[in-house]
Amino acid sequence: MHDPTRSVDLRRVSAGGASEDKDVVAVEEPLEIRVEGAPVAVTMRTPGDDLDLVAGFLFTEGVIDGFDDVRAMQHVDDPADPQGNTVDVVLAEGVPAARRTRADRSLFASSSCGVCGKASLDRIFVRTPPLARTWDPSPEVLTALPDRLRAAQAVFSETGGLHAAGLFSRSGELELLREDVGRHNAVDKVIGARLRADRIPIDDCILLVSGRAGFEIVQKALVARIGVLAAVGAPSSLAVELARAGGQRLVGFLRGAGYNEY
Amino acid sequence: MHDPTRSVDLRRVSAGGASEDKDVVAVEEPLEIRVEGAPVAVTMRTPGDDLDLVAGFLFTEGVIDGFDDVRAMQHVDDPADPQGNTVDVVLAEGVPAARRTRADRSLFASSSCGVCGKASLDRIFVRTPPLARTWDPSPEVLTALPDRLRAAQAVFSETGGLHAAGLFSRSGELELLREDVGRHNAVDKVIGARLRADRIPIDDCILLVSGRAGFEIVQKALVARIGVLAAVGAPSSLAVELARAGGQRLVGFLRGAGYNEY
Repeated sequence: MHDPTRSVDLRRVSAGGASEDKDVVAVEEPLEIRVEGAPVAVTMRTPGDDLDLVAGFLFTEGVIDGFDDVRAMQHVDDPADPQGNTVDVVLAEGVPAARRTRADRSLFASSSCGVCGKASLDRIFVRTPPLARTWDPSPEVLTALPDRLRAAQAVFSETGGLHAAGLFSRSGELELLREDVGRHNAVDKVIGARLRADRIPIDDCILLVSGRAGFEIVQKALVARIGVLAAVGAPSSLAVELARAGGQRLVGFLRGAGYNEY
Repeated sequence: MHDPTRSVDLRRVSAGGASEDKDVVAVEEPLEIRVEGAPVAVTMRTPGDDLDLVAGFLFTEGVIDGFDDVRAMQHVDDPADPQGNTVDVVLAEGVPAARRTRADRSLFASSSCGVCGKASLDRIFVRTPPLARTWDPSPEVLTALPDRLRAAQAVFSETGGLHAAGLFSRSGELELLREDVGRHNAVDKVIGARLRADRIPIDDCILLVSGRAGFEIVQKALVARIGVLAAVGAPSSLAVELARAGGQRLVGFLRGAGYNEY
């Protein structure tokens, strides 16, 4: 596997002057996702947990309905791609032909920002019925999460340049953390890890993201049946609408002793 | 046009207790981009400056080589889309047929994060030759930029939830500011505004982005011939490589009195 950070030369400028130095930056490399040899998506990601990322992406984009739909997935062994930047997925035999082509539709849908033509909330809920809220974390549990996420963010603390998604138990214990240069990728990696461990739905956890909560983050979390989504940053209008319609508890600006619940 | 912010009801929780309140959030809506009736991309964006966004997107994704390639562009007048979330572009007569289909290729390329199969740096430089560096801003000019960007960020200060891209003159005067929930969209809006004003290449300016600098931001800036790209946040490994190969000056962690130059 590849290191998620890389050392680069730089010139550090401060009020006191400038000096040559080295620092580490987060690695960003393209990952091509193929379904039975056919490329369906390219995402810029931080290497590491690639199979989690692919599983999560295919699941949250609707290509697979569960990990049973995957017969095999592996990095393509190709001398032209020594970096391991291609993963091929073979679907299970029972998967309907229509599902295989969903990859292309999903691709069309996900231009520009992982986003999805399916912006009509109604269409989303055909595949992802609204959640029934069964539990609520207390303010004490919620406000303790950001410090725990940050403390566990190994790569971020080195580079200052990575998004994180962390899955916490009802009582606020960190169960799973994934980092990536892309916000959506970090979420797909978390969901994919649970999918590969046959631990979907994720209705017993809180998902905390290090940045903002947009429409797509809410949508991915809903597909995985995550009932509580918390963000350190701000939510967007469509994130608030979708979370509300989907019965998901959405927490924003989770910092210090407070937060907003939408 | 639509308001870039929207008021939402929320519950504000702090150490002192919880209360019902209202706050504004940044609006996020899908924008479907069509070329002569055929959908080529959907991006989640903050409404406003839509035509700048579409022009910049088509230019930085390689569908058009300049604004001369556009005969007309407008919001589609459709009762089914009262929100104005669709823009159609008619290309000029002289544009080669191959270019029209580039939209589809670009689409394929830009799954998941605006990203682009074209991750091979060589392929990028076929279309975008490296820049010749002709000037350098001083540390005094650079370190003054973030405060000016923030002061001008009307919507951010309301919502805390928007990315900004600002174009500054050599001496550090703000010439153009665009905001969006999407980092790439803010950059496309800035580039598109200059394109529509027939002011490309942008070799006389510094582009400052409010977040991190990834591969795609560097690539878009290179297509517009922006020689100096500065980010308040961290760059990625591929951003550093591409900027270096493209002769672009890349500044990261531009905060307070200092920054890193890669």
